[in-house]
Amino acid sequence: MSYTTPSGTDHHSETPTMIAASKVNGTKVCNAAGESLGSIHDVMLDKQSGHVTYAVMSFGGFLGIGEKYHPLPWRQLTYSEAYDAYVVNLDKRVLENAPSYGTADVPDWSIYGHDIDEYYGSRQPPLM
Amino acid sequence: MSYTTPSGTDHHSETPTMIAASKVNGTKVCNAAGESLGSIHDVMLDKQSGHVTYAVMSFGGFLGIGEKYHPLPWRQLTYSEAYDAYVVNLDKRVLENAPSYGTADVPDWSIYGHDIDEYYGSRQPPLM
Repeated sequence: MSYTTPSGTDHHSETPTMIAASKVNGTKVCNAAGESLGSIHDVMLDKQSGHVTYAVMSFGGFLGIGEKYHPLPWRQLTYSEAYDAYVVNLDKRVLENAPSYGTADVPDWSIYGHDIDEYYGSRQPPLM
Repeated sequence: MSYTTPSGTDHHSETPTMIAASKVNGTKVCNAAGESLGSIHDVMLDKQSGHVTYAVMSFGGFLGIGEKYHPLPWRQLTYSEAYDAYVVNLDKRVLENAPSYGTADVPDWSIYGHDIDEYYGSRQPPLM
């Protein structure tokens, strides 16, 4: 019984509908116009449900303040096959003022998650 | 605004309810009796919904056939804080006969996922 594919496509870690978590990390993030915003540093999973709760975005430099991690509710991200990236339909100013932490910081998620939910809570998720 | 915590706890990648995908990979997997079965090699995410569809388990040697990857529907895994591991309430013989692939193989998930769903489809998920 063989499940291998003759093509060179990376079916090991990605299909048209699925992607390995290890491959999500590093995926580009852009805005609706396709402009690069950063990349996915890691994704936070709910242990029990197995649902991605937050995508931790890494913004390197474009804000002029060095690399920072900006956690976003997963529902704010829409995967775009055209861009081969996750699209975040948010204004840069919204992201600039959003909760974030430095790469050397250790966030306390027990309070941090609440702040993220509150910050983005009133915004409508992008259409799927 | 500080989100850091004074404790030495790794809040960066894990909380009581959440865990970073990068940390799930490598987490132990055991049966209901707490016996080690292997570990999580990777998790496959649905790009659109952000839900973990399959947990790819790595079985190293206990079957006597070298390391193999056994994808399991995520609903078959229950996280146990007591064991600090994911518990799979399945008989070893069920796992032995389940779809798997070698570490050097490249599975074609477009057909493979269907086989996994079919194999485990008739079994009841563990109680949450």
